[in-house]
Amino acid sequence: MKKKIVIIGGGFGGMNLAKNLAGVKGIEVVLVDRNNYNYFPPLIYQVASSFIEPSNISYPFRKMFQGKDNVRFYQGTFLSVDVEQNSVQTSEGNLNYDYLVFAQGTQPNYFGLSSISEKALPLKNINDALKIRNTILNNMEQACKTSDAAERRKLMTFVIAGGGPTGVELSGMLSEMNRNIRKKDYPELANDPMHVYLVDAAHTLLGTMSQKSQQETLASLTELGVNIKLSVAVKNFKDDVVYLSNEEQITAKTLIWVSGVIANEAKGLPETAVLKNKRIAVNEFNLVTGTTNVFAIGDICYQDTDKAFPNGHPQVAQVAIQQGTLLGKNFKKIINGKQLKPFRYADKGSMAIISKYKAVAELPVGFFKGFIAWWLWLVIHILPIAGFKNKVKLVCSWLWNFISNDPTLRLIIHPQKQQAEKVKTADNKN
Amino acid sequence: MKKKIVIIGGGFGGMNLAKNLAGVKGIEVVLVDRNNYNYFPPLIYQVASSFIEPSNISYPFRKMFQGKDNVRFYQGTFLSVDVEQNSVQTSEGNLNYDYLVFAQGTQPNYFGLSSISEKALPLKNINDALKIRNTILNNMEQACKTSDAAERRKLMTFVIAGGGPTGVELSGMLSEMNRNIRKKDYPELANDPMHVYLVDAAHTLLGTMSQKSQQETLASLTELGVNIKLSVAVKNFKDDVVYLSNEEQITAKTLIWVSGVIANEAKGLPETAVLKNKRIAVNEFNLVTGTTNVFAIGDICYQDTDKAFPNGHPQVAQVAIQQGTLLGKNFKKIINGKQLKPFRYADKGSMAIISKYKAVAELPVGFFKGFIAWWLWLVIHILPIAGFKNKVKLVCSWLWNFISNDPTLRLIIHPQKQQAEKVKTADNKN
Repeated sequence: MKKKIVIIGGGFGGMNLAKNLAGVKGIEVVLVDRNNYNYFPPLIYQVASSFIEPSNISYPFRKMFQGKDNVRFYQGTFLSVDVEQNSVQTSEGNLNYDYLVFAQGTQPNYFGLSSISEKALPLKNINDALKIRNTILNNMEQACKTSDAAERRKLMTFVIAGGGPTGVELSGMLSEMNRNIRKKDYPELANDPMHVYLVDAAHTLLGTMSQKSQQETLASLTELGVNIKLSVAVKNFKDDVVYLSNEEQITAKTLIWVSGVIANEAKGLPETAVLKNKRIAVNEFNLVTGTTNVFAIGDICYQDTDKAFPNGHPQVAQVAIQQGTLLGKNFKKIINGKQLKPFRYADKGSMAIISKYKAVAELPVGFFKGFIAWWLWLVIHILPIAGFKNKVKLVCSWLWNFISNDPTLRLIIHPQKQQAEKVKTADNKN
Repeated sequence: MKKKIVIIGGGFGGMNLAKNLAGVKGIEVVLVDRNNYNYFPPLIYQVASSFIEPSNISYPFRKMFQGKDNVRFYQGTFLSVDVEQNSVQTSEGNLNYDYLVFAQGTQPNYFGLSSISEKALPLKNINDALKIRNTILNNMEQACKTSDAAERRKLMTFVIAGGGPTGVELSGMLSEMNRNIRKKDYPELANDPMHVYLVDAAHTLLGTMSQKSQQETLASLTELGVNIKLSVAVKNFKDDVVYLSNEEQITAKTLIWVSGVIANEAKGLPETAVLKNKRIAVNEFNLVTGTTNVFAIGDICYQDTDKAFPNGHPQVAQVAIQQGTLLGKNFKKIINGKQLKPFRYADKGSMAIISKYKAVAELPVGFFKGFIAWWLWLVIHILPIAGFKNKVKLVCSWLWNFISNDPTLRLIIHPQKQQAEKVKTADNKN
C-alpha cells in the first residue's frame, strides 16, 4: 500500500520536499498550493520596482513535475486539518493523508494595527509585487496631472516600514528610479523628486547581518537619497499620513509594509503545538508536537533542538530548503523502517543588494561589499530559480537593464479591474 | 502660438500619428490612453494561450516618447467632447485642444445579446487576454479535481464565436495545447480531450481572404481536431450552454467572443457624423463630417472617398497605420498653410497563422501557405512591435517555444482578486 503524503505549500520547503520524493516507490505526493506556480521570494522586490517580469521568477508546478507520476498538484487554499481523521479541509474539498506536511510559510505581521493592515501594501508574493508596481506607476501618472504641489508630493512619497533585506532593496530601487527614470519618463516631474523613507524600530538596518554590512548599507542608501529613520516604529496610517512612534508624521499616499511576519495559521493543530507568532513547534525531525504523522518545515515551524540555534532558526530560505530536503530523505527512512536523521542547519551566509552596483554579502568564505558582492549576489540568486529558461531570461533581463539603465516593464496591468469595468452591452442600433 | 493636438487612443493610428508629430515645431501633442502602454493586438491571442508574455508585445508610452519634448502622455479614459468649446472631457479632467483626433478604435460587438456580453470573454486587449489565460488554466485545474465526467467535459470545452484571424489562431492554439501539453501537465486528464469549437455565421472562415486561404485553413484546423460550425450564429449563452441558430446546443463553461466589433463611442459629435456600428464619417483628409478641427483615424472612422474602397476600408492595422502617418504629414501642411493630401490605402496583404508550422499569407507578391507562410508571418509580425528589446525577447520566446514545444507561462495571476482576498488583520496575540 502506497503512503500518501500531502504537502501544504509549494515554497522553498514544500517544493524541495516534493522534488526529493518524486519517483520514490511506495510514496504518493499531493502538493497543495493556492497558486499554480512556485516563485522566488528574494526577487519579488524587483518585480515591484518594474525591473523584472513575474514570469522571470515563477514556474508552474505542473511543468516542474511533468513525468513524475507519483506527484500530483492540487490548486487550493488550506482551511483546516482534522488530525484524528487524517483529513485536510481545503477551499476545493477534503484530502486524506497518511502523512501531512505544513510548509505554507508566513504572512505579513501587522501587530494588530488594523489601520495599517487595511491600507498598507505588503510584499510577500507576486500579486503583492504587481500591486505595488501598479501603485507606484499610477501615483506617478496622477502626480503628472495635478497642479496642487502638496498633493503631488504626497503621491511621490513612499514610506517603507521594515529595514530588513526587502526594505533595503526596495528603497534602493525606488531611489534609482528617482535618479535614472523620473526625468526621462516624466518630464512634467523634472523638478519634483520622489521622497523615499525607510523606517525601522531597531537601531540598525539589516539587524541579522554584521555591523560592517549595516554601516555599508546605511552609508550607501543615505548617499542615494533614502531618508532613513531608525529606532522609530510606524504606529498608524490614516488620511495619507504615516504616524511614527516619535510623534513625527510623514505625509504620503503609499506605505509599504515589509516589517515582520507571522506564520500562516495551521487551524486544527493541538493548542500546545502553536507558539509565538503562530509558529508550529516541531521536534528534531520536524514532527509537530502532539502528533504522530504531521510535520512542519520552513518559516512556519519553530525548532529549538538544533544546538547552534537554541532559540530557533532564522526564517530564511536556506532553512526551508534544507528542512525540505532532509524530510524527503527521512520519509524514505520511515517507509523502510530506518532511523531518522535530526535536522542541523548549515548556514550559507546572507546577502542584500543596495543599489545598482552595490551589495553586501556575508558568506562562509568571508565578507564582500560593493561591485563584487553585487555580482556574487546575482550569481547566487540565479542558481536556485526553477527552470533553465527562467535563469536565461533573468540573466538577459539583468544584462539589458544593466546596459540600458532603463527597463521597459513600466506597464500598469489590472486584469481583474478591467473585467469589472467591462461594458455591459454594446448594442448595434445605429 | 503652438497648436495643441489632442489624440484619443494610442493604438496603431494614434501612436503613428504622435510619432510623426514628435519634434515638429509649432505643434504640441497630448496623447490620451486608458492604458499607460501601447500593445500589439495581432498577437494578443498568443498571450491568451500562455505562449508569450504581455510585456513581449507591450511598450510604455512614456518610454516611447522619452526626449520628445512636444509630446505628453495623459492616462485617462475619454468621456465626451464639446466641439463648440474645443474641449474634451476625460475621467481625469478636461483638456482643451486646437485639433482633436479620435483614434480609440473599437470594442466587441455583442449585437445586443446581453446574455453574451455579460458572460462571454472578449479578446480585444491585454487584460482580456490575461482573463482568458487564467480562465483556461483554472478550468483545467478544476477539471483535474472533479469526479463528475459531465462537469469535466463542460470545463474542457471552449467555444470560440468568430472565424476571423483571431478565432482561427486561438482555436489552433487551444488544439495544440490539447495535443502537446494536456497529457504532460495534467496526467489526471490523459483520457479527457479538450473540445474546441469554432463557430461563424458566414459560410466560410477568414471571410476577407481568398478561397485558397479559406480552404487551407479549414482543412488544417479540422485535422488539428477543431470542431468547425459554419453558417451558424451563436444566439445565447446561459447556464453553461451555448445556443446556436440551428437549434444545436453546446455544453461549455467558456465562450470566447471574437465576432465583430463596434466603434468606441465618440460622445458629443454631431449626429450626422455617427454611422452604422458607431463608425465616424470622415472626408478624404480624415476630417469628421460637420466639424472643422476634429479628425478620426483607424478602425473608428468610415471613409468612402478612397476610389478603390467605395464602401469604406477594412478595419485592419495597416489602414490605421497609414492614416496616422498621413494625418501627421497633413498637420505639418496645415500649420504651414499648404494643400492637404487625400488618403489612399495601399493594401499590403493579410495573413493568419493556423498551427505550429502553418499559416496562410496573401501578400502583394503572391500567396503563401504552410511553413514558408508561417515564417513570413513571424518576420512581418516582429517588425512593427515597439522597442528593440521587445523584438529580441519575442524572437527568443518563439524560438524557445519552437524548440521546447512547451512554454513555461501557464501562470494564473490575479493581482486584483488577491487584493480583495487580503487578510483583514493578522494579529499577534499568541
